[in-house]
Amino acid sequence: MSRLFAPTLREAPAEAEVASHRLLVRAGLARQLMAGVYTMLPLGLRTLRKIEAIVRDEMDAAGAQELRMPIVVPSEPWKATGRWEAYGDLMFKLVDRRERELGLGPTHEEVITPLAAADLPSYRDLPVNLYQVGWKYRDELRPRFGLIRGREFLMKDAYSFDRDEEGMRQSYRAMYEAYRRVFDRCGLEYVVVEADPGQIGGGVNHEYMALAEVGEDLFVRCENDDYLADVEAATPAAPPTAEGPGVAALEEVHTPGAATIDAVSSLLGRPPSRMLKCMLYAAGEADVAVLVPGDREVNEEKLARLYFPVPVSPFGEADFARRDLPPGYVGPQGLPADVTVLADPSVRAGRDWVAGANRPDHHVTGAKQGRDFRVDRFEELVRIREGDRCPNDGGELSIGRSIVVGHIYQLGTRYSEPLGATFADEDGTARPYRMGSYGIGISRIVAAAVEQHHDEAGIAWPRALAPYEAVVVPTNMDVPRVVAAAERIHGELTGAGVEAVLDDREVSAGVKFADADLIGFPVQVTVGRRGIEEGVADLKVRATGERFRAPLEGAARAARDLLAAAP
Amino acid sequence: MSRLFAPTLREAPAEAEVASHRLLVRAGLARQLMAGVYTMLPLGLRTLRKIEAIVRDEMDAAGAQELRMPIVVPSEPWKATGRWEAYGDLMFKLVDRRERELGLGPTHEEVITPLAAADLPSYRDLPVNLYQVGWKYRDELRPRFGLIRGREFLMKDAYSFDRDEEGMRQSYRAMYEAYRRVFDRCGLEYVVVEADPGQIGGGVNHEYMALAEVGEDLFVRCENDDYLADVEAATPAAPPTAEGPGVAALEEVHTPGAATIDAVSSLLGRPPSRMLKCMLYAAGEADVAVLVPGDREVNEEKLARLYFPVPVSPFGEADFARRDLPPGYVGPQGLPADVTVLADPSVRAGRDWVAGANRPDHHVTGAKQGRDFRVDRFEELVRIREGDRCPNDGGELSIGRSIVVGHIYQLGTRYSEPLGATFADEDGTARPYRMGSYGIGISRIVAAAVEQHHDEAGIAWPRALAPYEAVVVPTNMDVPRVVAAAERIHGELTGAGVEAVLDDREVSAGVKFADADLIGFPVQVTVGRRGIEEGVADLKVRATGERFRAPLEGAARAARDLLAAAP
Repeated sequence: MSRLFAPTLREAPAEAEVASHRLLVRAGLARQLMAGVYTMLPLGLRTLRKIEAIVRDEMDAAGAQELRMPIVVPSEPWKATGRWEAYGDLMFKLVDRRERELGLGPTHEEVITPLAAADLPSYRDLPVNLYQVGWKYRDELRPRFGLIRGREFLMKDAYSFDRDEEGMRQSYRAMYEAYRRVFDRCGLEYVVVEADPGQIGGGVNHEYMALAEVGEDLFVRCENDDYLADVEAATPAAPPTAEGPGVAALEEVHTPGAATIDAVSSLLGRPPSRMLKCMLYAAGEADVAVLVPGDREVNEEKLARLYFPVPVSPFGEADFARRDLPPGYVGPQGLPADVTVLADPSVRAGRDWVAGANRPDHHVTGAKQGRDFRVDRFEELVRIREGDRCPNDGGELSIGRSIVVGHIYQLGTRYSEPLGATFADEDGTARPYRMGSYGIGISRIVAAAVEQHHDEAGIAWPRALAPYEAVVVPTNMDVPRVVAAAERIHGELTGAGVEAVLDDREVSAGVKFADADLIGFPVQVTVGRRGIEEGVADLKVRATGERFRAPLEGAARAARDLLAAAP
Repeated sequence: MSRLFAPTLREAPAEAEVASHRLLVRAGLARQLMAGVYTMLPLGLRTLRKIEAIVRDEMDAAGAQELRMPIVVPSEPWKATGRWEAYGDLMFKLVDRRERELGLGPTHEEVITPLAAADLPSYRDLPVNLYQVGWKYRDELRPRFGLIRGREFLMKDAYSFDRDEEGMRQSYRAMYEAYRRVFDRCGLEYVVVEADPGQIGGGVNHEYMALAEVGEDLFVRCENDDYLADVEAATPAAPPTAEGPGVAALEEVHTPGAATIDAVSSLLGRPPSRMLKCMLYAAGEADVAVLVPGDREVNEEKLARLYFPVPVSPFGEADFARRDLPPGYVGPQGLPADVTVLADPSVRAGRDWVAGANRPDHHVTGAKQGRDFRVDRFEELVRIREGDRCPNDGGELSIGRSIVVGHIYQLGTRYSEPLGATFADEDGTARPYRMGSYGIGISRIVAAAVEQHHDEAGIAWPRALAPYEAVVVPTNMDVPRVVAAAERIHGELTGAGVEAVLDDREVSAGVKFADADLIGFPVQVTVGRRGIEEGVADLKVRATGERFRAPLEGAARAARDLLAAAP
């Protein structure tokens, strides 16, 4: 450690909001170069490499093959798939000296798909799963939390090519299982959930979410453990459809200045759940109204997915003016036929809604679907919340926080179609590949692991991810017998294949102990003046804090036993 | 090989001008994504990884430590060192969503130097050598020759930080030797030469040049093997200084239309070596005249280095007009004092030069330095050529062609000064680091190795770089005993740690042999129907073409012996 470039710090950087960011910097694993962009110092790089090795091992075992695609990518295929627009500012874009537009790849569907078309021309070449481990780029609006949401991050991305849907599902299942093994081996506590495909597009997809209090990725879980979903993909059980007669007539009421659900609710003495929220959106050239009960929010990610790749944005002032509708007083009654009216199934539960009257300072009561307003299509569009009911068994749903560390997608022909990527099938027909894509956030795993394995004193690495497995600490560098014993134990450990460092720095024992706890070596072996006299070394398991003593000559063996049992 | 993604091609891509480009594509190791940007397919990636492993091994053995710096870099430190301007269009530049200027790093002095200043604050922390293996970017004007001159390329770059010049030279020597070991282990034929530092700047530096007929990097070698230099850095022995009296007087002669050396030479019947070439350059705000004999060219790279980081460009029409000088008729007589007059030492060899008269259609004869024109400074500025004399022993110099695969630099304070990167020395003084920087072109080594090791049939990998060391070829997939024997030999080889593939494709033996030669596995083991009957396998060493037979049960052993002896 006297030569190791592992600069530890007593103070965390001011901008570090979460433990992993603070500790990765303080323990000398990473340094920020600029917002969302980090240098990995030697210890941090070792941890990254360990995760890479686990990932490669499981990918190879699952029959995938590694290649390496460029980081700078041409814009043309991205324009063909619509993602050049869809990513927008989130993609780093540049122009080369020949004025050609280029991007820095956030994922590589647009590179691998044409490659497959050129080099996997026949059904006999399929199935194939190709992966790479490389740095990816997203120009995040708010990069934060260190390695959790960076603008440059290390990913493993894999792409499967199959002849048909059944083959694609098989490839997907193989990856689904391989991913579980990766995250198990990384020592992460995680859940696998149904998820929203986001900008990648496609159909069935799952997220691997590492549980973390600071995580920004929310998931929904049923109290009976039979439902798990990403909060953006989750669908609560809809309340029962209202039935029977006895519905009031439509009536206009004066509601001056009551342009919000809460205001109308107070004014009319009706709970927000009895109000009908009518939100307007522009989806490209078309206009869309979305109806949800007044106490619910629209899940705009799902709405965006319905219209992907056409961008969807809430009505602005100009939009309201164009339609001659009063913001805050819009209701579904009498909306023009060219406004698509979508409603969440929960709207079926009401029969006499309070809604805007499409006239300033007025609402209606007794609005009824079918009689007073039309619904063109029902879509599950309410954002889920704590206490909603499980769609499987009606159990109570709760919301958990996590960091997404893996995401797998059944893409179908989402990319092969627009890119014209086809293979010759047995009968000679040109058919588009059925694809899957599979990502693991390797640098993010580093941060997620620290979030799950740390305490006040520092990081407590699981053995599989630790930059070094053990540290040997001679407390008195001025006592030759102490140094000699520590060197011998260190030599025995490395000789036995343990990744161990010797803390031979000329600093106080207190500094060495603090750094050992901060960096988080799973096992610490301490040799001091008194220990030498008694013929013993002190051992400590970082994760549990347990302490042991062992005879000097058996210390390396004892350290190995503790490591073998360590998490 | 039935599952390996190694798509071989019968035809080379039209744009491939050199063997390595043709063969890396045909053998299924690489695919072009766009000009100068390549995807490395599984076999190509394996070779890259082998080179990486050799490099890491030697860097670690030399005491360097690996870290990983970002690819996107902020512009500010690049502006501070002058390289943002100096690189110009050669650097990929972009702007992020917050309008911050960023670049894609061609090298990383501007990242590592501030890092050292923050984290190596004391002389006690030195010396340190930090390296990384990563993709680098140069927006080449003419990317060509496949991996030889790409816009994205894999580099190992290392940076040493020392307390003083002597420490820097020690660090440099350690790298100098480590580099020799790297290139030796890669099986490359190469020379190490003194070189020009180019845009990196600094002083002493060496290039490692892999010999290659197609190489664009020229070096100069003395017939007596006591001088080697990059052509841009080479300095020929200057001819002896002319002495004695008997010099003609300065005389103006009419030379209508003779604006070139050749024209004046014919007109006056004097050889070009007796003419004085006076070239004018603008170096930022200043003007410079460079004098060389008429049969020589100015080494503009060296001139640029003299003025670095101020850009130097030859006089254009506007410059001549500004100085009221006639292009083609410029001589050094009477040049204004604010024009710096540089002369190559070979100008000392002449006493009565023919030079331009600074008047259209006129020259002068009998021009003599000191009497008729001044020289402000002598600088070695002639471009070397075949047949020049060695500066060490006067031996004949010849020019060789190569591909630069490594370049090491003594940077001194070239970066630490402008970036204000200092450490606290023992007496408390803040001193700038003495730095070195050290690059290896890993992806370029792949191409250089292929240039040195190929024939008509394909690549003939040296063992250390081969994607797989051996291939086992069953010629008749429909004969179970053939397949079984081949599988057994393949199993024995992999069991013994040999990286072997089994060519189990349902294609003809001819296709298998052609692909084996094309991909270039160092050893081929063939099992055929007749061999099975005779109980023998056929072995071939790819590099030499030698063929052997071995009993089936000894075939794996024989293959290992051949591999052990292979280059």
